[in-house]
Amino acid sequence: MNLDSIIRGRRSVRKYQSRDIPDPVIADLLDLARYAPSSMNGQPWYFIIVRDDRAKGRLVKIKNKYCPAEKSMYKADFVQDAPVVIVVCVDHERSFNREVENAVLATANILLGAYEKGLGSVYMSAYKRDDPEVAEEIRRALDIPDGVDPITMIPLGYPDETPEPKEMGLLDEVIFHETFGKK
Amino acid sequence: MNLDSIIRGRRSVRKYQSRDIPDPVIADLLDLARYAPSSMNGQPWYFIIVRDDRAKGRLVKIKNKYCPAEKSMYKADFVQDAPVVIVVCVDHERSFNREVENAVLATANILLGAYEKGLGSVYMSAYKRDDPEVAEEIRRALDIPDGVDPITMIPLGYPDETPEPKEMGLLDEVIFHETFGKK
Repeated sequence: MNLDSIIRGRRSVRKYQSRDIPDPVIADLLDLARYAPSSMNGQPWYFIIVRDDRAKGRLVKIKNKYCPAEKSMYKADFVQDAPVVIVVCVDHERSFNREVENAVLATANILLGAYEKGLGSVYMSAYKRDDPEVAEEIRRALDIPDGVDPITMIPLGYPDETPEPKEMGLLDEVIFHETFGKK
Repeated sequence: MNLDSIIRGRRSVRKYQSRDIPDPVIADLLDLARYAPSSMNGQPWYFIIVRDDRAKGRLVKIKNKYCPAEKSMYKADFVQDAPVVIVVCVDHERSFNREVENAVLATANILLGAYEKGLGSVYMSAYKRDDPEVAEEIRRALDIPDGVDPITMIPLGYPDETPEPKEMGLLDEVIFHETFGKK
């Protein structure tokens, strides 16, 4: 698959086969993740591979507890059935005030790499800008020390659903020249 | 190029040939950008293609003015010589409190797509968490309305430098199992 077909073909997958994911596949993915750019090349990433059912259960509970009303159709229960959940964390000091950016750039590589390897995944956040309790609870659940922030959590599994291709508007409607609104 | 070689080979490029980038190449890149996942599939992106020298000059000035001391070796002057700068913006309302995430996921596709098309690029932010004036000044420079936030700005050009491959630590040092610190 070339980059275009990977980027265009990837969709969020929330239903997984019970089949496990071999460790080397996960290691490959995390190696890709850390080739992302990072502020000041700080490479601040830590990755926690969660396979334990009780740990997954704790993540589900935290995500559901803090799920805002507008996103309530996206309950986190399905995370329990993902064979693997990757929690992407960043070292605060080596992030140079760009914790979220650094974590999301690495996460983007995980999402694309997963699809290329035949895995399904979905982007989920492990913190909330306006409620530090979300990251705090995840921190406690996974023994994450102060100075390291969980930012995203990515369930992974061989897909057990085939999402429809994404419906897109006209590209011309979102591109401007020189200033906003100028065609 | 396959995904692995794109992700591993891509480096930040800050020196560009004067050769222009054809419009269809930019359109292709921005089409890839908007295939990124977004919160609630809000697809909140707007892309401003900046080619005008005065507009680039304004961006350089703003970036240099707010550049923190620790990042002062990365002056933004080189942006003036990029044939194109893409400013990635997101609609606030359609971002569901994930403005930065949505913009960064689209930006990741631009960076990877650029490298695959033989272009050099470098990740730059168009806002600062602790200083709203940065985004405000960029907003004014590019006529960006309230309710739309500039998040990243990506200079693009055919490379006039060949950065060294990235030096990486051991993968094992950044991977944990089940809880932080557990090998």
